[in-house]
Amino acid sequence: MERKRITIVGVGLIGGSLALQLHEKKLSSKLIGVDSNKDHAKKAVELELVDEIMSLDEAIDQSDIIMLAIPVDKLVKLLPSIMDKIEKQIVIDLGSTKSQLVESIKSHPKRARYVATHPMWGTEYSGPQAAVRGAFENKAVIICNANESDADALEWTRAMYKKIGMHLLEMEAKAHDLHAAYVSHISHITSFALANTVLEKEREEQAIFELASAGFESTVRLAKSNPAMWVPIFMQNKENVLDVLKEHIAQLTRFKESIEKEDNDYLMKLIEEANKIRRIIK
Amino acid sequence: MERKRITIVGVGLIGGSLALQLHEKKLSSKLIGVDSNKDHAKKAVELELVDEIMSLDEAIDQSDIIMLAIPVDKLVKLLPSIMDKIEKQIVIDLGSTKSQLVESIKSHPKRARYVATHPMWGTEYSGPQAAVRGAFENKAVIICNANESDADALEWTRAMYKKIGMHLLEMEAKAHDLHAAYVSHISHITSFALANTVLEKEREEQAIFELASAGFESTVRLAKSNPAMWVPIFMQNKENVLDVLKEHIAQLTRFKESIEKEDNDYLMKLIEEANKIRRIIK
Repeated sequence: MERKRITIVGVGLIGGSLALQLHEKKLSSKLIGVDSNKDHAKKAVELELVDEIMSLDEAIDQSDIIMLAIPVDKLVKLLPSIMDKIEKQIVIDLGSTKSQLVESIKSHPKRARYVATHPMWGTEYSGPQAAVRGAFENKAVIICNANESDADALEWTRAMYKKIGMHLLEMEAKAHDLHAAYVSHISHITSFALANTVLEKEREEQAIFELASAGFESTVRLAKSNPAMWVPIFMQNKENVLDVLKEHIAQLTRFKESIEKEDNDYLMKLIEEANKIRRIIK
Repeated sequence: MERKRITIVGVGLIGGSLALQLHEKKLSSKLIGVDSNKDHAKKAVELELVDEIMSLDEAIDQSDIIMLAIPVDKLVKLLPSIMDKIEKQIVIDLGSTKSQLVESIKSHPKRARYVATHPMWGTEYSGPQAAVRGAFENKAVIICNANESDADALEWTRAMYKKIGMHLLEMEAKAHDLHAAYVSHISHITSFALANTVLEKEREEQAIFELASAGFESTVRLAKSNPAMWVPIFMQNKENVLDVLKEHIAQLTRFKESIEKEDNDYLMKLIEEANKIRRIIK
């Protein structure tokens, strides 16, 4: 693939990890960082995630590709104004919700230069220092509403994601947001709520955490995730997140009732049902 | 340490992993397995987890130490009858709940030969083929009601757990069961319920799992755990498990309400609170 001049807006966990991977796979002739957080911008250069930092306008001028890795509330505000400024450049976002974003530039004259994507990778850490080498490899990336993008923009986007090791899926933004609520957003809510449950108790019981086991750690790990990223995701995906959250509370209530009633058979059935998740995760 | 003839009752995940570790650390001159499941017993010999399989009575006769790694409902039934049969042997259990068990032999004439323990290690798999080399290392083990055990029994138990790499904690059975509800039992319930939430949706949406990410996998991993182990744990620790489960449902309801009301500030506060779990898990 021909190397491109690539701007990354938001050089944190996602943007920083992407930068490392774009360089590693020889996709970039130049990597430009844009970040409203000056400390992050400085750190991204120090860590050699990007070659240099520019203002957004400068960066747009000097790039072939503009990739957006910022929280989804900022994305919805920024994307239309970026589309106003570009000529032939390709604009790609990496946000965790897609419907509002796609809707926000639906009628924009440059709509076809934009590709909506969601690479399904992340960690519970944030900022440029959280960037990870080899990120995204063997994970799924979803490209949304592909038929609304230009063929050349799509082609480069697909080739780039393949090159950094991802497998491609395509779906409409609405379907994406529904599925993301089930396989990602709810996991974060349960983890946040579990952390709060246990921290609430800790006020009374100092010793509690000496016992924290590997099982606890894996279910509560995501509770360290960045609120500036997750609050906008939950709000933008409100309907789907509420649907799955209500279903989850209903499922937990079944466990509660089976224990209250000492109904061993029903509790056994609930757990056997849950065991079927083996079909999905090995 | 002088090597001992050690019987392990229940040669599954926990008993099998323990057998590997007792051999590795040269704690045993002979390892005898007892298992009501004939396939498990046979497999444990094939895998060389234990030297041979015997009936419980034979095993008791030929052992210095008897370690019990069976589900907690079976443990409560079996422990008193084992105490009836021993002379000078030390009996140690590894169950995940402690109050009912300790209560069950409180007034037994041989009570002092028994040590109640809970090594905080496990995986979501079960059976002898799930046994893991190097298990238990760098994990906590809780010894309960130590003042009710003979000095020599305690001394050997402590030395054995140290030798296999665990760090020792001591507490009363009641305190143990409360803490275990928070740092272990609730994680399993949330994971089971999350699996059921998502599996419920899968009936409608076949594509959903192509997207499952690492975050999803870590929160739902425990849902593969064995119901024969977990139903008795939840039932024996009913009061504590219900307390924490009610608190957890209340915490989830706060997330639900903040999203329903689009109260970004409150949702932000809930997540910032959850982030404090960083104090406990690194």
